[in-house]
Amino acid sequence: MAAPPKPTRIGLAGLAVMGQNLALNIAEKGFPISVYNRTTSKVDETVERAKNEGNLPLYGFHDPESFVKSIQKPRVIIMLVKAGAPVDQTIKTLSVYLEKGDSIIDGGNEWYENTERRAKAMAELGLLYLGMGVSGGEEGARYGPSMMPGGSFEAYKYIEDILLKVSAQVPDSGPCVTYIGKGGSGNFVKMIHNGIEYGDMQLIAEAYDVLKSVGKLSNEELRSVFSEWNKGELLSFLIEITADIFGIKDDKGDGYLVDKVLDKTGMKGTGKWTVQQAAELSVAAPTIESSLDARFLSGLKEERVKAAKVFKSAGFGDILTAPEVDKAKLIDDSIEQGWDLKLGELARIWKGGCIIRAVFLDRIKQAYDRNADLANLLVDPEFSKEIIERQSAWRRVVCLAINSGISTPGMSASLAYFDSYRRERLPANLVQAQRDYFGAHTYERTDVEGAFHTEWFKIAKQSKI
Amino acid sequence: MAAPPKPTRIGLAGLAVMGQNLALNIAEKGFPISVYNRTTSKVDETVERAKNEGNLPLYGFHDPESFVKSIQKPRVIIMLVKAGAPVDQTIKTLSVYLEKGDSIIDGGNEWYENTERRAKAMAELGLLYLGMGVSGGEEGARYGPSMMPGGSFEAYKYIEDILLKVSAQVPDSGPCVTYIGKGGSGNFVKMIHNGIEYGDMQLIAEAYDVLKSVGKLSNEELRSVFSEWNKGELLSFLIEITADIFGIKDDKGDGYLVDKVLDKTGMKGTGKWTVQQAAELSVAAPTIESSLDARFLSGLKEERVKAAKVFKSAGFGDILTAPEVDKAKLIDDSIEQGWDLKLGELARIWKGGCIIRAVFLDRIKQAYDRNADLANLLVDPEFSKEIIERQSAWRRVVCLAINSGISTPGMSASLAYFDSYRRERLPANLVQAQRDYFGAHTYERTDVEGAFHTEWFKIAKQSKI
Repeated sequence: MAAPPKPTRIGLAGLAVMGQNLALNIAEKGFPISVYNRTTSKVDETVERAKNEGNLPLYGFHDPESFVKSIQKPRVIIMLVKAGAPVDQTIKTLSVYLEKGDSIIDGGNEWYENTERRAKAMAELGLLYLGMGVSGGEEGARYGPSMMPGGSFEAYKYIEDILLKVSAQVPDSGPCVTYIGKGGSGNFVKMIHNGIEYGDMQLIAEAYDVLKSVGKLSNEELRSVFSEWNKGELLSFLIEITADIFGIKDDKGDGYLVDKVLDKTGMKGTGKWTVQQAAELSVAAPTIESSLDARFLSGLKEERVKAAKVFKSAGFGDILTAPEVDKAKLIDDSIEQGWDLKLGELARIWKGGCIIRAVFLDRIKQAYDRNADLANLLVDPEFSKEIIERQSAWRRVVCLAINSGISTPGMSASLAYFDSYRRERLPANLVQAQRDYFGAHTYERTDVEGAFHTEWFKIAKQSKI
Repeated sequence: MAAPPKPTRIGLAGLAVMGQNLALNIAEKGFPISVYNRTTSKVDETVERAKNEGNLPLYGFHDPESFVKSIQKPRVIIMLVKAGAPVDQTIKTLSVYLEKGDSIIDGGNEWYENTERRAKAMAELGLLYLGMGVSGGEEGARYGPSMMPGGSFEAYKYIEDILLKVSAQVPDSGPCVTYIGKGGSGNFVKMIHNGIEYGDMQLIAEAYDVLKSVGKLSNEELRSVFSEWNKGELLSFLIEITADIFGIKDDKGDGYLVDKVLDKTGMKGTGKWTVQQAAELSVAAPTIESSLDARFLSGLKEERVKAAKVFKSAGFGDILTAPEVDKAKLIDDSIEQGWDLKLGELARIWKGGCIIRAVFLDRIKQAYDRNADLANLLVDPEFSKEIIERQSAWRRVVCLAINSGISTPGMSASLAYFDSYRRERLPANLVQAQRDYFGAHTYERTDVEGAFHTEWFKIAKQSKI
């Protein structure tokens, strides 16, 4: 590989797709860049891409020492590796060769307290540290992401000119980057961003579900609805790609691809962190919580299939729940902790003395006596029967409250829990398609085993021509 | 103070009300008990009570050494002190005098991982450790709580006879105690219990709100409704005390006390832990989450009062929200972290590149340009106006979904958020009354400053005669 004619302006370590694309973006904006990856084939791949995408000033290195030494001082290195241990490992590898005044920037989705811990450790070595959220997926990294740098202001100033050029440029609004603040604030803000993204996607999925399941709209009709929405005040990336998704035919069979995508939504952790952090800070974040819950419930595919059957065989094609359903989840918890909890026994010892004592606990105990491995109280024969008898009254009460402007967050969230739990198919397929669209997260299918990825953007672009 | 004629059976350290009552309960069941508290007046108080409540075999000590040495070997000491540092401090104080084979039992609401950490440290000293959730409030501790001991089975066996006698006794069901399991399982189960309690109380509060606000029921009518419910399948402690609460007149003025209780609900942490732990374990717990959120929102009294005014002055006595409201909460977060976040600037840098880019962000930015200290987007003049215009459509969609059995957890939770946020008064006063009823957590009033406690049970009992 060609050595740089003089020290490069910046370095980037970690050449998965996001890293490769951000490095190419930086090089394309005229900043010579050194790149490194532990698996050296990724280095060669990136160098090859830089050549093919316009002979960009990008230089690859197979060993960390020559990588670090190729960068002009004070050195700045962006890491784009998986959050957690890989970040610590990369810092360890690089810091051996770094000198006082050099900077490391973590561009991943890291927990903000980890960034603060590392910044302190780096400061003791005389190194500067930034935690920088980068949003926009692969496309954004290559052509202009939104960047949220937080930590050392000095380190930020070293590369401000680069960030201003590589970030997304919005007319009348400027580059999509700003110094967020001290400490782990860059990661924190990115985490909240992702939480909002969870909520945004969930609301779109619900709109899809209502339009499709109640309104009986076809995919073509959905496509035109979302396209129309995208012309007005809802104009946004997520609405746009949603409209696109509805227009894409299945390449492995008849019909549309979205209908084949398995309704299980994956996740990476920032949504969970947002919910936990909101609770820590006493902030009500119900939309994000419910979107996280929707992902959790989407993952219980097998349980939902069974629940749907139970209700169907009872002659009921629709609704219901109680707060106690959460208790049934202790099954999973206890397996995880190795505690071997006896749920019926818990219901029993709560029958007296404690604040939740109630005759109702008897019936819970009976349900677990009937079946100790009951996945969820809702699918117990007695409970399911009764719930079917009562669900319409439940709906009447919640709708009465809603139409009266009285909040019933617990009742409506429980009803939503039931309506998700008992359904065989949720609109999570759309969310999964969106995630594959912008993040290449892949998806599973309803008909064939395996992990699939589709070039949604390309196909959509072609069908627009 | 009288010394015990021979070593006592067990010791108890930490003599706040729960500790005093549990110690008296144990003594009353015929187990001689030693008690200790750092603030010695509490020791004297407990000894005095033991004398007054039937010359119970309870012995007080002003110093930890003689306290520990007064107990028969192998010694067992129950701690009832605040979770966290006070527990570590108490263990430190006592363990100096303990010998191999002795046991410590934490009866507080401790985070289960802390219990596991301490159990390990104790094991190294040859001491046994139990984390034991105790539910039932003051009354329960004195006359029969529900107990959830987890950890050393050996330690459990030492005191099983005591626990079986002091716990609540339910006919046909037995004593409300069982060995939960290893590690921190006792605390974990208690935490979940409390989470369910949060949900239970929230659902009751919502029923109250609908009956009162929509159905226009008087307190007397509410009392008879809850009394009636308490005769059927809803029979439970919480329904029972709720019925009681509606019957209690204000002792400081006209009308009923419940109407004077300030609608701000307090909390201690187990609900928050449940929500965070549910997220950690990928469990959807929407009812508990929404009850925690309802408590958070109840705390924003001043904001809600302002929001209610904004909507009232717009000629709107009722409804609405968007997922972005959570972003506004970053104000609080950033104050907490000292990061000085500029919310409009965040909206701006998300306008391009990132996954949530949308023209809608412009309007958020404008709202923060108009008022950088905006507490919530909902109260921005533009947003509030538009929300008023649109809320009825929002309600129609959610009700249509509910009546169709389609879950819209995000939409309905957001609507509930709005309906809570914009209301001057929430039914949190009832929850606060319940908490004061069973836990003496005190409450604030709408008319007079200060923290108040009422003997709800006594007054209710008298009015029943």
